[in-house]
Amino acid sequence: MGNCCNSVVNFFGRQKNTNVRVSLPAVCFVWQIAMIVLFGVFIRYDEESDAHWVEFKQENNITSDIENDFYFRYPSFQDVHVMIFVGFGFLMTFLKRYSFGGVGFNFLIASFGLQWALLMQGWFHSLDPATGKIYIGVESLINADFCCAGSLIAYGALLGKVSPVQLMVVTLFGITLFAVEEYIILDLLHCKDAGGSMVIHAFGGYYGLAISWVLYRPNLHQSKRLNGSVYHSDMFAMIGTLFLWMFWPSFNSAITDHGDGQHRAAINTYLALASSVLTTVAISSMSQKRGKLDMVHIQNATLAGGVAMGTAAEFMITPYGSLIVGFCTGIISTFGYLFVTPCLENSLKLQDTCGVHNLHAAPGMLGGFIGAIVAAAASESVYISVHVSLKSSEVLINVRFSLFKGFILRFPIWGDPADDNCFDDEVYWEVPEEEETIPPVLEYNNHMIHKHQDM
Amino acid sequence: MGNCCNSVVNFFGRQKNTNVRVSLPAVCFVWQIAMIVLFGVFIRYDEESDAHWVEFKQENNITSDIENDFYFRYPSFQDVHVMIFVGFGFLMTFLKRYSFGGVGFNFLIASFGLQWALLMQGWFHSLDPATGKIYIGVESLINADFCCAGSLIAYGALLGKVSPVQLMVVTLFGITLFAVEEYIILDLLHCKDAGGSMVIHAFGGYYGLAISWVLYRPNLHQSKRLNGSVYHSDMFAMIGTLFLWMFWPSFNSAITDHGDGQHRAAINTYLALASSVLTTVAISSMSQKRGKLDMVHIQNATLAGGVAMGTAAEFMITPYGSLIVGFCTGIISTFGYLFVTPCLENSLKLQDTCGVHNLHAAPGMLGGFIGAIVAAAASESVYISVHVSLKSSEVLINVRFSLFKGFILRFPIWGDPADDNCFDDEVYWEVPEEEETIPPVLEYNNHMIHKHQDM
Amino acid sequence: MGNCCNSVVNFFGRQKNTNVRVSLPAVCFVWQIAMIVLFGVFIRYDEESDAHWVEFKQENNITSDIENDFYFRYPSFQDVHVMIFVGFGFLMTFLKRYSFGGVGFNFLIASFGLQWALLMQGWFHSLDPATGKIYIGVESLINADFCCAGSLIAYGALLGKVSPVQLMVVTLFGITLFAVEEYIILDLLHCKDAGGSMVIHAFGGYYGLAISWVLYRPNLHQSKRLNGSVYHSDMFAMIGTLFLWMFWPSFNSAITDHGDGQHRAAINTYLALASSVLTTVAISSMSQKRGKLDMVHIQNATLAGGVAMGTAAEFMITPYGSLIVGFCTGIISTFGYLFVTPCLENSLKLQDTCGVHNLHAAPGMLGGFIGAIVAAAASESVYISVHVSLKSSEVLINVRFSLFKGFILRFPIWGDPADDNCFDDEVYWEVPEEEETIPPVLEYNNHMIHKHQDM
Repeated sequence: MGNCCNSVVNFFGRQKNTNVRVSLPAVCFVWQIAMIVLFGVFIRYDEESDAHWVEFKQENNITSDIENDFYFRYPSFQDVHVMIFVGFGFLMTFLKRYSFGGVGFNFLIASFGLQWALLMQGWFHSLDPATGKIYIGVESLINADFCCAGSLIAYGALLGKVSPVQLMVVTLFGITLFAVEEYIILDLLHCKDAGGSMVIHAFGGYYGLAISWVLYRPNLHQSKRLNGSVYHSDMFAMIGTLFLWMFWPSFNSAITDHGDGQHRAAINTYLALASSVLTTVAISSMSQKRGKLDMVHIQNATLAGGVAMGTAAEFMITPYGSLIVGFCTGIISTFGYLFVTPCLENSLKLQDTCGVHNLHAAPGMLGGFIGAIVAAAASESVYISVHVSLKSSEVLINVRFSLFKGFILRFPIWGDPADDNCFDDEVYWEVPEEEETIPPVLEYNNHMIHKHQDM
Repeated sequence: MGNCCNSVVNFFGRQKNTNVRVSLPAVCFVWQIAMIVLFGVFIRYDEESDAHWVEFKQENNITSDIENDFYFRYPSFQDVHVMIFVGFGFLMTFLKRYSFGGVGFNFLIASFGLQWALLMQGWFHSLDPATGKIYIGVESLINADFCCAGSLIAYGALLGKVSPVQLMVVTLFGITLFAVEEYIILDLLHCKDAGGSMVIHAFGGYYGLAISWVLYRPNLHQSKRLNGSVYHSDMFAMIGTLFLWMFWPSFNSAITDHGDGQHRAAINTYLALASSVLTTVAISSMSQKRGKLDMVHIQNATLAGGVAMGTAAEFMITPYGSLIVGFCTGIISTFGYLFVTPCLENSLKLQDTCGVHNLHAAPGMLGGFIGAIVAAAASESVYISVHVSLKSSEVLINVRFSLFKGFILRFPIWGDPADDNCFDDEVYWEVPEEEETIPPVLEYNNHMIHKHQDM
Repeated sequence: MGNCCNSVVNFFGRQKNTNVRVSLPAVCFVWQIAMIVLFGVFIRYDEESDAHWVEFKQENNITSDIENDFYFRYPSFQDVHVMIFVGFGFLMTFLKRYSFGGVGFNFLIASFGLQWALLMQGWFHSLDPATGKIYIGVESLINADFCCAGSLIAYGALLGKVSPVQLMVVTLFGITLFAVEEYIILDLLHCKDAGGSMVIHAFGGYYGLAISWVLYRPNLHQSKRLNGSVYHSDMFAMIGTLFLWMFWPSFNSAITDHGDGQHRAAINTYLALASSVLTTVAISSMSQKRGKLDMVHIQNATLAGGVAMGTAAEFMITPYGSLIVGFCTGIISTFGYLFVTPCLENSLKLQDTCGVHNLHAAPGMLGGFIGAIVAAAASESVYISVHVSLKSSEVLINVRFSLFKGFILRFPIWGDPADDNCFDDEVYWEVPEEEETIPPVLEYNNHMIHKHQDM
């Protein structure tokens, strides 16, 4: 566990400099200063978070402060916030020696991402043409957190294989692309996607996969010893899983219409998630010798019901409809972990550390179709074709754009790790010495051995 | 840690087949499909989560969406949801090698239980006779979570000794019995028990104890090496403890009356819990050599105040009355862990892994009495006799029913573990190899030893 | 890990008796009984949590239960509650063998502290002169939690070096002093400090530092082997960090004015915190060889933006103003960990285990100044001088009072640990044996060695 991991030239002669002492501070400082300047120019409080709320209330015949949007949405916002930082963060701590990187880089890129998202989403969705300003309130914060989710999903595919500087770049481009894509889907095509099956999950999943494809590492097996979990790292990941699972009803209902919209979205998501758990357990048990459960499935596929319910959550999909969605996606997602991930790696040269294809991309696509079908059943048949064509085009944009970006990310300036020290916190973190691993008995052994040698 | 744990015939010749590869998927699939069908027949959105909310608002002169029950109860619902999945789940991770089972099976049975609870509670409490439908909203979700709590408490007594298939059966019967018992207590006898001291905690505790008694394992000492904690498993359990402790005010106030009812229930529970912590620490310190604290007490007995305040939380019990309740139950619960659990095991042949007797059964009973006394003091004296006779009868139903069910659970088809591999995740989970446990120094040792041997 | 740690006379001849078997239960019992008596005399439900709410509503023309203060503040209260118990508790689990003490003693002293705070704050701020009673509601609970925060911050400076009995005394005095200080600042000087930059963070920080200074241990290096983290203890600490970080917007908005006040406070804090993360990462990376990040910085300095935004959160500081505050405090706090903590220890003989100076004291002071400047900019120029003089006097009161108390705490009756067993859970907790640390391979080694010896 020494400094050897940082060697500039690794065993296989490929030159990799993982020193980010200049690039990481530079990116953080310059981008944060840019955020301050851009916020200064563009971002203001909206009428519900501004001191003029008192007059706004009178003008709009609002009788009580409780009707401020804050009280409709703030509890959901906090649940979403927990999902972004604890949920996604801890879900990525399952690797035995990459837990710092999982939760720490997630923290960094989400903190940058939400600022950039407030700007990008503001420019596309809510720039006031009269004043040239973006007015933000609690709903903007939720949308910014949503926007981050897309980039964090992409991080799941790249986990352990990229440097924090590359992640910042991935986030910058991801948020930008997200805002464009969201604008096309929600504002131009007038689709509804409150929980973001398509705009967040399918987008984030394919975005991450495309980058991972471009950054394919043929010798990644050199880090195989670190690409797995230990007992307690799996427990930390369960913290992430459960907070995502529990708060997904808030995620899908956070920005739906006040009243029955939020109420119904929460119920539907709650039911779909419960149903996912049972089918995930069923397939996981069937697939293993002696019916043993696999933690990878429990940590991930149980969440697929929430992803797939994103688009349709606020629709009148009925409670049993929600159960069916969860039933199917739990099966699909677990099969994905069993068969699609190995296949992607072997055939398509796509290394997907967290299996985001199975948790986000596929269930997100499915969620888009479910939304289209439900909307069509409500006699808006035009939706189907829109959705389908949309998905294809979205994916195409994604792939093309990512190819370009992947090309950029391959420049040898980013400080990414060599193939034989991927998945290792030693590269970017000061890791404490584990003196505990040498129990007292051992020292006795050593002593004995030395005595023998002296004999 | 090898495959030896799965041997069909164990050291002591008793045949145990822990292979659940057929039974677990079968139960999950069949029951989930049954849920979908029953939901299709019976469950619909209520008027506050249905698209007809707009008309409902007009008919009932509701001026603002904020008066949708969603905004009164959703934050409490989410807190309760965290208690069920993270609170109960992580509280059961304290065993050194059964953390996957603790949090994972809790996740599975709660996900099934909440669906079955929506049906059972619907049939007993809210079936519309005109339409034959059950209409659900956020309050139904809270009640379903409550209902699960009973079965999760029972799991606490059985932790490490049963298979996931047995747990599903325990949950199915537990939820059914719970709905009947709740119907008798709340609807027929018109008792109040908003936080469920009796209907949830005393019920769940005695239900689990009765099953554990029937499933008594005389040779459980063969798993003694695994029936304990390690340093970090105790830390994971503290996550469960703290989320239960912090959100208990939401648990006891979640379904009380709007306005002062919810407000007062939260205050009373907050105070009772704070008081419990101090007396738990006091008794724990007194009981140990040199005054050292025992993590088992801190993880469990600190919660007793919340359990005991369940029935009386919304009553005008006064703030100091709440402190007194917490004071007494903290003492009683810690004494339970010190004296009653060993006594139950030795004399009554009752193996209670998590000590649910001390945390749920006894404080729950006490909570029922406290509720009766407070209600009586408010000149509703009839309550006392009702409560007392009730508890006896409840317990009797529980024991008789559990005897029957215990008999069923003893059939050799459930895949439960042999006495010498209880409390072991190896039986039902793919457990990662801990290569970390052999530090580099050791390999050097091995090398040295081989050299010696070659000499 | 044996009993040696409890030796009455340690290696260096200094007598330390860490037996708290009499003192800890005595303090817990007597103080809890005192709380019950004082609550009986003074504390009652306020009009919004009392059964007279129905009449109160009619008298005040309140049309809906949703306008009960419970619905404005309860979600924020629960977030604050999580910060106090999970946030502060887990943030202090980073030491390799003091995690039980970190989270467990935090639990104990916060549970006592919130009761004493309800009384002290009641006497100073809301004693009804007509009835001689204190009327409590959800806002009182939030204030009580805030009040605890001051003492928990002080615990951060003392972590691992004091006994639980000493901590109870520190909390008793800390809450008392807090209530006085808060009364002077908020009620007499009419300053605004909703998020408590000054009254909570600067106060708690300097209070802890002053006590730590008085309790200076010249031989603390004897415990150096335990004054550090291991891989998974750093992960537990990240749970604390993230829950503090995510819920800080609730902390700073919990008791601000209904409507736009709460809304704006949440937005400002959210932005300041995001900005802190980037500058913390930048400085942390710059300061280390090869740009590696230090977990101590990520766990602590990322929160500085929330501390510094406490006073000004509800002001019209503008979104970019919030980003600037976070930008600066992230830098200042990380520099504090790099340079000020070592300097404090070497020059001023001040041992600050968690670095509360850098996270709470300095950013809290800064927060006070920021609040003053913003208020002044809103043409209330008198604020500046008030704040400045205030901070000086506050610190002076703190230091003088702490000197007196430090003198008391040095009496040899408190059961505090000797210099060579600080930071060790063995002293006050029953710690499980880690049989896992001897892997099977080792036993083989032992066997081999014995064979060699027999040769």
